[in-house]
Amino acid sequence: MSLAPARAAEIESWLGEARAWTDRELDRLLPPVGSEPRRVHEAMRYAVFGGGKRLRPAIVRLVAAHCGGTEREAALVAAAVECVHTYSLVHDDLPCMDDDDLRRGRPTVHRAYGEAVAVLAGDALLTHAFQLLARSGPLAGELVGVLADAAGAAGMVGGQDLDLGATRAGAPTSAEVARIHELKTAALIAASAEMGAIAARSRPTERIAAQAYGLALGRCFQAVDDILDVTGDAATLGKTPGKDQAAGKATLVAVLGLDGARQRARELAAEARRAAEGLGAVKGDLAYDLVAHLLERRA
Amino acid sequence: MSLAPARAAEIESWLGEARAWTDRELDRLLPPVGSEPRRVHEAMRYAVFGGGKRLRPAIVRLVAAHCGGTEREAALVAAAVECVHTYSLVHDDLPCMDDDDLRRGRPTVHRAYGEAVAVLAGDALLTHAFQLLARSGPLAGELVGVLADAAGAAGMVGGQDLDLGATRAGAPTSAEVARIHELKTAALIAASAEMGAIAARSRPTERIAAQAYGLALGRCFQAVDDILDVTGDAATLGKTPGKDQAAGKATLVAVLGLDGARQRARELAAEARRAAEGLGAVKGDLAYDLVAHLLERRA
Repeated sequence: MSLAPARAAEIESWLGEARAWTDRELDRLLPPVGSEPRRVHEAMRYAVFGGGKRLRPAIVRLVAAHCGGTEREAALVAAAVECVHTYSLVHDDLPCMDDDDLRRGRPTVHRAYGEAVAVLAGDALLTHAFQLLARSGPLAGELVGVLADAAGAAGMVGGQDLDLGATRAGAPTSAEVARIHELKTAALIAASAEMGAIAARSRPTERIAAQAYGLALGRCFQAVDDILDVTGDAATLGKTPGKDQAAGKATLVAVLGLDGARQRARELAAEARRAAEGLGAVKGDLAYDLVAHLLERRA
Repeated sequence: MSLAPARAAEIESWLGEARAWTDRELDRLLPPVGSEPRRVHEAMRYAVFGGGKRLRPAIVRLVAAHCGGTEREAALVAAAVECVHTYSLVHDDLPCMDDDDLRRGRPTVHRAYGEAVAVLAGDALLTHAFQLLARSGPLAGELVGVLADAAGAAGMVGGQDLDLGATRAGAPTSAEVARIHELKTAALIAASAEMGAIAARSRPTERIAAQAYGLALGRCFQAVDDILDVTGDAATLGKTPGKDQAAGKATLVAVLGLDGARQRARELAAEARRAAEGLGAVKGDLAYDLVAHLLERRA
């Protein structure tokens, strides 16, 4: 199942290229530096350009290309999903939520700009995502619907609420953790894949396959995140390992132990590969090999 | 300029009917009670059904009808603008923002449900607004664009940021107060009018006239709000008068004095009536007479 080193390097390089493309598009599509409201715009960019992996935009781009779409068609969608991802991090970091001082080695937005600006910058990023999708002409309705479903109470907001509840209550079940992962992380990755297919004007069957692929990939990705929280080192991760564990977070490792979580991550990777096949990808295709890459990642 | 008592009663009754219609639509279009995430859904409804005037949905309905549209066409838009209005109140009330314990005589959302749920319920309401507009078929892109522009950093978010900055800095100019009013209040009322016209599939010239009408009406409405903060009584207002003044808020009364603010409100009402004429309304039409009604309101 493991990737050959040469293939791993290829995927790494492709992800780096997707990251650079995403950064260029975000720079182009976010409100310009220095324009009013200055503090909010500055905080939006501080949050967005904080060194993220850009996995979600990469998945938009990958699926769009897989479905015959162009980079241009994928650009607005890629920027929109990253705005939503970033908004969720800014609000989740707030003192009344996870109360985090650092994110990717830098002060969180509320530590750098104050709580009020952090709430507003998050609100503005969420709104900006829909502003970007509104420019998609006849596809706007469908794209907005998919993104709003993933972001709202039935998606990421619900996941964060469950997560906070589970942290307080202690001792969640493995089904509860799976549900939190699905809502907090996998829903937006599934939406990214589905929106990539929509942007490429693909058929409904392809959209459904893309959605299933994103969902499986997202669940596998989050399982690995939980494992890295325990096994990773600070320098590679860019955050303090053991943080989720110390905070009593509902993680896969907390409910299954480390070996159990690793086993579960492998099962989820197998599911994601089957979903990639559903999308018409075979071994050697990016959509397929990305699964192994995310399973084996160290950061 | 004053309305005859009979006409004032007619407008009051029409506003009451619009309020009942809005409440029915919101009840139908918000996530059902008891569904997961239970706390967030409950807090969303607590915030939305807190006894607001429903002015924005009423304007959506008024303009849609004026442009030949149906109630049905206006319903999603009306619910969406009220969701955005409510989200902004929930987030503005947070301790890190205006730190309000009461809203319309009841505990604010963060006092009733805690800060984390208040942030999440606000996020969910904002997202839900776009979810509703996504169902508008070929009009979705335009509607989402207009609403997002009004809500985002160049609109309400920017207005709240300016307001917080002005409150801290003290002694704002009258131009600064006008700008805060425009962004915090008038932008969404302008969007409500414009979206009413879009929902009715009206011509671009009508959309522009509707937008101008909403903007002028919104500025007049907020000017009266500033005056009522000083002259109103608690029982009629449903909030403590003098609160903005005590908090050092940038209000029209603070920069112009009470008489100056009253003069300014009358000028803005005259502008709003001219804008109503631009929409083809004459004295005796609702769009026209609503201006005097809002100017003379006591709560």
